[in-house]
Amino acid sequence: MEKDIKILALDSSGLVASAAVVCGEELIAEYTINYKKTHSQTLLPMLDELKKMVELDLDSMDAIAVAAGPGSFTGLRIGSATAKGLGMALNKPLIGVPTVDGLAYNLYGTDKVICPIMDARRGQVYTGIYKFERQDDRFVLKTVKEQCAISMEEVIAILNEGKEEVIFLGDGVPVFKEMIAEKMTIPYSFAPAHMNRQRASSVAVLGAEYYKQGKIQTAAEHQPEYLRMSQAERERLEAEGRTNGNIS
Amino acid sequence: MEKDIKILALDSSGLVASAAVVCGEELIAEYTINYKKTHSQTLLPMLDELKKMVELDLDSMDAIAVAAGPGSFTGLRIGSATAKGLGMALNKPLIGVPTVDGLAYNLYGTDKVICPIMDARRGQVYTGIYKFERQDDRFVLKTVKEQCAISMEEVIAILNEGKEEVIFLGDGVPVFKEMIAEKMTIPYSFAPAHMNRQRASSVAVLGAEYYKQGKIQTAAEHQPEYLRMSQAERERLEAEGRTNGNIS
Repeated sequence: MEKDIKILALDSSGLVASAAVVCGEELIAEYTINYKKTHSQTLLPMLDELKKMVELDLDSMDAIAVAAGPGSFTGLRIGSATAKGLGMALNKPLIGVPTVDGLAYNLYGTDKVICPIMDARRGQVYTGIYKFERQDDRFVLKTVKEQCAISMEEVIAILNEGKEEVIFLGDGVPVFKEMIAEKMTIPYSFAPAHMNRQRASSVAVLGAEYYKQGKIQTAAEHQPEYLRMSQAERERLEAEGRTNGNIS
Repeated sequence: MEKDIKILALDSSGLVASAAVVCGEELIAEYTINYKKTHSQTLLPMLDELKKMVELDLDSMDAIAVAAGPGSFTGLRIGSATAKGLGMALNKPLIGVPTVDGLAYNLYGTDKVICPIMDARRGQVYTGIYKFERQDDRFVLKTVKEQCAISMEEVIAILNEGKEEVIFLGDGVPVFKEMIAEKMTIPYSFAPAHMNRQRASSVAVLGAEYYKQGKIQTAAEHQPEYLRMSQAERERLEAEGRTNGNIS
């Protein structure tokens, strides 16, 4: 029999902070909050609380999974830094789970097209398009369009072209609800509150799949995937461009 | 615009202890553990932890939802007693959510038949059969077979007769996995770790639906639904039966 894989997972890519421990087919613990506090105030205390509550031996984990972006730059840095610290101290591998894939995994087993949308500001969303496909006695997440930063109009155009019923989720939903109602020409719905935001348990379960496929990194290797430049980088490049004429 | 309904939900019907706060379309907080500690040691401390973390004003809740059975007798009593205490102190209504319906709600939006199974010992499972049906822009949980205590063989026979693909979940899965493999004649799969056990957020979201339909109780009215007699009751009745011949 296969040994149960033990994964500690963190997601602080958005407004939500979430930590979970999964062992094989069982969720041992999950703690999620969606509140105005910053992740630096919440993520580690939440993990510490879980650790005490289930008398968790961190050394028994096989790997640390983390929502590896895109998302809030500060949130991603806090999540990655925490995961890297844990991985280094415990000498355990890291698993970087693309944030949008993790969100799609909330809807495991659905026959609909899944479209997570995260508000990326400046008229864009972090999004991707996914479907679950049956393989033997389980469902496997298939990427129709890999996670990216594009305009909501573009996503809607792609979904309309696909002609398959869609479920939307993510913090972009309240922002783009009206545009969706106006522009979608195919049936769609929205995931409800218990599955429409980041959950560390989804990151853990998808992370366990990656672990089985050998998709792991060392703590030193791991980097979050921002998908876009930060505002500071953008401004610096723009300023340099204005100075030396390299950037149009 | 509709006012966002705020629900505090508890589920201690099985091995899992879970507490959640949902406001409208958003999960504010959820804390779930699946650990050997008894619920009397975990449920209230977890709720207290959540309360502090999200600076929760319990008085702002519209109602208290609770997984109202079936399940572990002790677990149900702790969950119901806690919900009754909160409801009475805060003067808020209670919403009793059938445990098996709450489990099915984990798989919101699936096109498969949902069959939660909880190990009820003595050869039985607490189970029910459900489907989601699209109504306008959302999915509504439809009960094909209401929650009940029956043998696993019986459930499998009903599912086979229905001829529709099934997803199983619940703590009965590891117990009956071999029997399922042996006797199921139609395609089936098992829900993964992030959605295969009790979650208070599912109880909250389904509870909010009941709240809108006016399906509420006072704290005094609320009673858990055990579906079977406790061992103590059974033994007392059997003893009485043996004495006065009333029970066959």
